Amino acid sequence: MYNYIGDKIMTKLLSGIECRNKLKEKLTKKINKIKEKITITVISVGNDEASKIYIKNKIKECQSVNIECQHLHFEKTTTNELINLITKLNKDKNITGILVQLPLPKNIEENKVINTIDYKKDIDGLTKSNIAKLYSNQKGIIPCTAKGIIDLLEYNKIEIEGKNITIIGRSNLVGKPLTLALLNKNATVTTCHSKTKDLKKHTKKADIIIVAVGKPNLIKKEMISKNSIIIDVGINRINGKISGDIDKSVYKKCKAITPVPGGVGPMTVYEVLSNTLECYELQKNKK
Amino acid sequence: MYNYIGDKIMTKLLSGIECRNKLKEKLTKKINKIKEKITITVISVGNDEASKIYIKNKIKECQSVNIECQHLHFEKTTTNELINLITKLNKDKNITGILVQLPLPKNIEENKVINTIDYKKDIDGLTKSNIAKLYSNQKGIIPCTAKGIIDLLEYNKIEIEGKNITIIGRSNLVGKPLTLALLNKNATVTTCHSKTKDLKKHTKKADIIIVAVGKPNLIKKEMISKNSIIIDVGINRINGKISGDIDKSVYKKCKAITPVPGGVGPMTVYEVLSNTLECYELQKNKK
Repeated sequence: MYNYIGDKIMTKLLSGIECRNKLKEKLTKKINKIKEKITITVISVGNDEASKIYIKNKIKECQSVNIECQHLHFEKTTTNELINLITKLNKDKNITGILVQLPLPKNIEENKVINTIDYKKDIDGLTKSNIAKLYSNQKGIIPCTAKGIIDLLEYNKIEIEGKNITIIGRSNLVGKPLTLALLNKNATVTTCHSKTKDLKKHTKKADIIIVAVGKPNLIKKEMISKNSIIIDVGINRINGKISGDIDKSVYKKCKAITPVPGGVGPMTVYEVLSNTLECYELQKNKK
Repeated sequence: MYNYIGDKIMTKLLSGIECRNKLKEKLTKKINKIKEKITITVISVGNDEASKIYIKNKIKECQSVNIECQHLHFEKTTTNELINLITKLNKDKNITGILVQLPLPKNIEENKVINTIDYKKDIDGLTKSNIAKLYSNQKGIIPCTAKGIIDLLEYNKIEIEGKNITIIGRSNLVGKPLTLALLNKNATVTTCHSKTKDLKKHTKKADIIIVAVGKPNLIKKEMISKNSIIIDVGINRINGKISGDIDKSVYKKCKAITPVPGGVGPMTVYEVLSNTLECYELQKNKK
C-alpha cells in the first residue's frame, strides 16, 4: 500500500490490516490442524469503556480463527477472588490461555493477579516469568503490541539488526518490552520519554522511530530524516476521529509509516491469537 | 581526585575506592545498630579462577562490616542438589542472603538454580522476581554492578535525569539492568553492542558513556566529546596488568572518568553489602 502524491509514490503505508490478514491465514491453517478445541478466558472487572471495545475486538478475532473465548466479567470483585479464579483456570486442561484486561479497578492488586497466571497460559506476556525470559533473550510470550510491531517490520522486510531504533515511551506494555525485544533482535535502541531533552536529536538520527505516547502531532516533519520508517502506536480520539501521535506533515517526508487506524492496532489484536497458539504449543511441549 | 596535567586540572577521576569508603561508613553504622548477626551464604561450584578472586574479595568485604559469610564450595554437584540446598537456606532464619557465584559449570541449569533463591534473599538481584521489579520500576534488589555505577554517579553529584546515556554492552549482569535502572532514573538511554553500526555516533552525542564490553582500548578520544563522563566497567588483564575498555588518550579529553582498577570494581563489591542490608530490611519488613 503506497501513498501517492500526484503520480509519484512517496511513502509506503505499512498496513497492519494487510499484514494481519496474511499472518492470520497461516495461523488459521495451523489451528485447523489441531484436533482439540482451543479456549481462552478473558477476565474483566469494572466499567472501563475502552476496555469493552478492546475485549469485543479480541473475542471477534478469536472466533474468526476458531479459538473459543470465554468472557468472565465482574462488576466488582477482590484480589483474592481473582487469584482463586485464575488458580482454577491454571489447572483447567480445557483452558489454553488467560487474559486479564487492564486496567483493573484500584482496589485490586494488579501485580498479584497477573502473576498468578501460569506463564504458559499468559497470553499477554505480563507475568514476571515472561518478563524475565524477554530480559534474558529466552523463548517466552512477548506482550502483544511489541510483538505485533516486530511482526509488521519483518513482514515488510524491514531490517532490524544493526539499525538505530528510537522508541518514544517507556510503558510496561509497549516501550519497555520493545526496548528489550529489539535489543534481542540486535538493534541499537534509544528509549526516550517525557524527561528526554531535545527529542529531535534522537528522532532525527533514527532509522526506525516507534512512538507510543498518546499525544497527537507529537512528531513533526522537521524531527525526522527522509529515510526513516515510522511506527505510530498512538491512539487518540479527537472529535470522534482516531489519530496517532504523528503529525500529518510527516507522511510526505518519511520512507514508510503505519497508518492510524489500520496500523499497529490490528497487529496487537492479531498477536492475541498468535500468543494463544504459542501457549498451546508450550503446554503441549511442541516447541 | 583529579588528573593534573602540568598544574591544570583536566579530568576528574571518579574513585570507586573513595565512594565505597564513604558509603561503607554509613552502612557500617546501620549494621552496627542491628542486634542480630547478619550471615550470608556464598555458593560456588568448580574451579573458575576469576570466581575464586571475586569470592575472596566479597568475603573480605563482608567481614569488614561484620557480615558473616558462609562459603559453601563444591568441586562437583548437580542442579537438584543445589536446588535442595537453596530451598533449605531460603527457610533458614539465620541466613539473610544467598549468593550463587556465576558462571556455574555447564552441567548445572543456572536459571533454575538462581530462580530457586527467595527474592528477599537474592543479593545479586538475578531472580525473575527482582528482574520484573526492575522492569516495572518497583523497589527490589538491583544487580551489584548496575547499582554500584548509579551510586558512584550520585555520590559525585552527576545528574542522571534527562541526560543522554550511552551504554555499550547488553549483558544480563550489566548492560540490561543498567538500561532499565537508568530509564527508571529518567535518563534517555541508548544501548549499543557488537551489532551496533557506527558506535562513534552514539558515544559522541552522549553525556555519560558506560562501557562494559571487555575489549581494551575500545573507546578512543575521537569517539567522545569533551564534556562526557565515562564509566569504564571493563576488566582486562594484559601482561599481568589490569586495564579497562577505555583508551588512555580519553583521559585527557573527557570531563570525568572511572579509573581501572579502583573505579567500578570496588563499587560492585560494596553493593554486595548494601544489597545484603536491603535483603535484611525486606525480610524484617522495615522498608
